[in-house]
Amino acid sequence: MREARIIERIESLWGALPDSAGVVRGDDCAVLELPGLAHDLLITTDQIVEGTHFVWGRHSPRDLGRKALVRSLSDVAAMGGWPLFLAQTVCLPAKALAGDWHDKFQQGLRQAATEAGVPGLALLGGDVSSGERFVATVTLVGRAKPGRALLRCGARPGDGLFVSGMLGGSILGLRRLLEETDTDRRDAAVRRHCAPSARIALGLQLAEVPATAAIDVSDGLGLDLSRLAEASGVMAVVEQGAVPVFPGASHDEALSSGEEYELLFTLPAGTQPPEAHAVSRIGWIERGAGAWVQDSGGRRRLDAAGFSHFAAG
Amino acid sequence: MREARIIERIESLWGALPDSAGVVRGDDCAVLELPGLAHDLLITTDQIVEGTHFVWGRHSPRDLGRKALVRSLSDVAAMGGWPLFLAQTVCLPAKALAGDWHDKFQQGLRQAATEAGVPGLALLGGDVSSGERFVATVTLVGRAKPGRALLRCGARPGDGLFVSGMLGGSILGLRRLLEETDTDRRDAAVRRHCAPSARIALGLQLAEVPATAAIDVSDGLGLDLSRLAEASGVMAVVEQGAVPVFPGASHDEALSSGEEYELLFTLPAGTQPPEAHAVSRIGWIERGAGAWVQDSGGRRRLDAAGFSHFAAG
Repeated sequence: MREARIIERIESLWGALPDSAGVVRGDDCAVLELPGLAHDLLITTDQIVEGTHFVWGRHSPRDLGRKALVRSLSDVAAMGGWPLFLAQTVCLPAKALAGDWHDKFQQGLRQAATEAGVPGLALLGGDVSSGERFVATVTLVGRAKPGRALLRCGARPGDGLFVSGMLGGSILGLRRLLEETDTDRRDAAVRRHCAPSARIALGLQLAEVPATAAIDVSDGLGLDLSRLAEASGVMAVVEQGAVPVFPGASHDEALSSGEEYELLFTLPAGTQPPEAHAVSRIGWIERGAGAWVQDSGGRRRLDAAGFSHFAAG
Repeated sequence: MREARIIERIESLWGALPDSAGVVRGDDCAVLELPGLAHDLLITTDQIVEGTHFVWGRHSPRDLGRKALVRSLSDVAAMGGWPLFLAQTVCLPAKALAGDWHDKFQQGLRQAATEAGVPGLALLGGDVSSGERFVATVTLVGRAKPGRALLRCGARPGDGLFVSGMLGGSILGLRRLLEETDTDRRDAAVRRHCAPSARIALGLQLAEVPATAAIDVSDGLGLDLSRLAEASGVMAVVEQGAVPVFPGASHDEALSSGEEYELLFTLPAGTQPPEAHAVSRIGWIERGAGAWVQDSGGRRRLDAAGFSHFAAG
């Protein structure tokens, strides 16, 4: 997984954070503990890149705006936080300045905030540039109760493993989107891919329960679960038949589909997940290492199932 | 100036910030007043885009890293702030992953922090993607004394107008860089363009004086001064002969050269700028509007002299 190696390399070049910094790094968001402040601050930054995260002309500008913000909103949700402000950069080729394309992109950003239940999300500012390919970045500032942000590293043997929603719809929808010629014919899977939601309300409730660990499914259940297992120093086991599969998707697609933006989390034994959310118990935590899927025939590694931008590595 | 129109459009689509938000927007950094926190927080985000901010192969990766961070450091300097943390996104084409190119880019980021007197600047995290063109964004979180961040809007008639350093070197250096064939032959102007410095120490002192207004020279003296004048609701007048011109550059280049990262600021009449910095008094503030340059023949508008990414507009 070349992406992970690049990130490791960046972090090694920058060195460890001093203990005095009051910062947690390497989770869905960075957590800042600032003296006197009633909340911890959360910071996350994400980009969407033409040709990598989307194909020009296949996604509407409004859907791209939603996607650009949902990526970061979902990171805040996975920390059990509340989004406060965003800053953005946009790199705009001439085609993005034609007609109302860029207006619709901005409206999509706002729509994602409204759909996540954060209509008051405020724009702090940003940077605008021309360029050959469209690239947008969103930086979100959020808050979490002091010391209560949900981290990846808290899962313990005996914990139950849960996921919200159904998985596999995003990759199914992307395939249909790239295959179809009539872009007005948008079925449930295509809508799922184009207009995902960030689980802000669920994340806030998980911080109250509290969950022992959480991460969002952005690169695929297999890859994100292996990150949670590694951060927690445990083995995560998924029951083959327990994963909620999006209608029309295969079981393998449910395990590998990225851009789902559902929450994957662990609860202590006997603790029930918050009601009023579609949540499935898909497995448990054991001593050991790695992410595994178990069926009647035994266990196999799940780590490799997921999305990387740098597949060649 | 199409860039300004795009930014206006974005802000109108997002709407005004609520008064209760405790946020200043539209300056070099956003200022967040958070309850209980001993400092105001500063947030700024900037991008460097291949083909727009640099030509591949003409700038070394180390210089690009410096430039990527100096853009944001200079915004914090112009607010009289101190940088605390950065987050970054990098969009990496295959050529940026060859050899140690990307390592050197990261080393350049760190070098810019060290050169600005902020060797402890901590990396919070970020996002890595593949893509066809190199794009990097840096988001900086800084702090300023409560209510003491330097804004663009505080200049008053009678104030003196000052700038640090010498202007014109960056555009002169860029021209020589693009013309030369031997990239090892780097004269002072080329070094000035490739390795600018952020005036963090000067900014901190200006916040103590305090200066009435400040902005950094990122898009050219004319353009940045017109922004300061507009935000303050005043006229800014530059004396033709008073602008410090980088050796070899023309006077017009000194007025229009962007990426200088010097500080442009105003002080109440009779107030002296901090010692131990190369600072020139270049003019004054009057009632009226716009940025002007005055010589023995009269005054002419300075507003149009500067850099815009969207010159076609």
